[in-house]
Amino acid sequence: MGAKVSLIIFIMLLASCSAVKRRQYTPCKNLVLFFHDILYNGNNAANATSAIVAAPEGANLTKLASQFHFGNIVVFDDPITLDNNLHSKPVGRAQGFYIYDTKNTYTSWLGFTFALNSTEYQGTITFAGADPIMQKTRDISVTGGTGQFFMHRGIATIMTDSFEGEVYFRLRVDIKFYECW
Amino acid sequence: MGAKVSLIIFIMLLASCSAVKRRQYTPCKNLVLFFHDILYNGNNAANATSAIVAAPEGANLTKLASQFHFGNIVVFDDPITLDNNLHSKPVGRAQGFYIYDTKNTYTSWLGFTFALNSTEYQGTITFAGADPIMQKTRDISVTGGTGQFFMHRGIATIMTDSFEGEVYFRLRVDIKFYECW
Amino acid sequence: MGAKVSLIIFIMLLASCSAVKRRQYTPCKNLVLFFHDILYNGNNAANATSAIVAAPEGANLTKLASQFHFGNIVVFDDPITLDNNLHSKPVGRAQGFYIYDTKNTYTSWLGFTFALNSTEYQGTITFAGADPIMQKTRDISVTGGTGQFFMHRGIATIMTDSFEGEVYFRLRVDIKFYECW
Repeated sequence: MGAKVSLIIFIMLLASCSAVKRRQYTPCKNLVLFFHDILYNGNNAANATSAIVAAPEGANLTKLASQFHFGNIVVFDDPITLDNNLHSKPVGRAQGFYIYDTKNTYTSWLGFTFALNSTEYQGTITFAGADPIMQKTRDISVTGGTGQFFMHRGIATIMTDSFEGEVYFRLRVDIKFYECW
Repeated sequence: MGAKVSLIIFIMLLASCSAVKRRQYTPCKNLVLFFHDILYNGNNAANATSAIVAAPEGANLTKLASQFHFGNIVVFDDPITLDNNLHSKPVGRAQGFYIYDTKNTYTSWLGFTFALNSTEYQGTITFAGADPIMQKTRDISVTGGTGQFFMHRGIATIMTDSFEGEVYFRLRVDIKFYECW
Repeated sequence: MGAKVSLIIFIMLLASCSAVKRRQYTPCKNLVLFFHDILYNGNNAANATSAIVAAPEGANLTKLASQFHFGNIVVFDDPITLDNNLHSKPVGRAQGFYIYDTKNTYTSWLGFTFALNSTEYQGTITFAGADPIMQKTRDISVTGGTGQFFMHRGIATIMTDSFEGEVYFRLRVDIKFYECW
């Protein structure tokens, strides 16, 4: 075996190292979950899972603001289910807030965590990002995780699976982790 | 030296590359810090380090809301100390907000940054995540850092070290970085 | 070729693997963008791009609070431009919120996303961190990205490029990605 073979080995190994380094564009983990938001409107205190807590001048806290709800902040604690049925056994809670942040269309900004506590999943997944609600699907960032999702990062594709006026909506969240640890 | 040895070298190197790639589950850096929150209650303007700035319908801004404070947003600028003494020399400020987000127990959601400025530490550490207050310890995500904590990521284990009614609490934050740069 | 050469190859390769693993301190991508914030003050509804939506006890929503605006939360949807001209064609929108969070100086905490939609850029970049406004430049964390910025992480250096009283300010954002995928 001579220098040539050594060189070949060297190149092969360099390539394999690079391959290891190269990022993967196929998820290392994938979860699809649903969460359900029932907005407090002054009359549904028992069932509501979210409430308007901040609003711009001239607006109030039991009705989403005019101008596409610009400036409303909603705090939520929504049940997470494995399927699209509000009455399915929850596997955790989606907790955090959303902001309506455009004056001439509906867009929101989300900061929240899935606190999962079931036989399938134990741990948290934290999300942040813009949510242009009127688009069929939109991507937000998964910025961190704990427990079973220790140090994970990824992208979540969100879809409005259903809504009823301004009181109920259900989001389908397709979580694709690309960094899994 | 024949092909067999080459193969062994190849496998060893592949293994070592993988080892390099493999994530580490022992922190590459570890900090324990404390921060102190004194909530404004209408009478303590001089000492208060935080204030309720948003609340659901029917609540006010000098008293945490009923229903486990659901919907309150509190903005804070709290001193950070190396030990559990409120009067120790601060090494920086914990700045950001927390939200109370459950109707039937106490949980919060945190978005904040440690802005550290001392002989020991220079830089920022940003945190986000759900904080189920009633649990003895809870993990939130460290989503980024600057300065001495450039590009760091990790997990922070939070513990309520002390509290006095609804006016003062002190959190012990055990920050474990697993990605250090 | 003997064991000595094999050992040399082994060490070289180990070194190259480590080199691949070693973090880069030169950005893998760099963008400079500007965004423009016009705060609603009760009289500029048509032009305003942001609004105060939460404030501490005693403050109101058309005027920033006293005590260095401590406790104000502002929701924004600001145009992003490639240069410092407010009237340049926007390449996207900066959407999210900022909080004023110090009682004895001006500092804020930012949580927002650049939603970019132009021939140059398609995708989102999400930011979080403390912004000590009075410093000439300050670093915040880029915690995630989607689209063209899929899974990116980095640091953004923010500079107040211009301001007019409490109604208009323009930020220059120098985004340096160190993790690019």
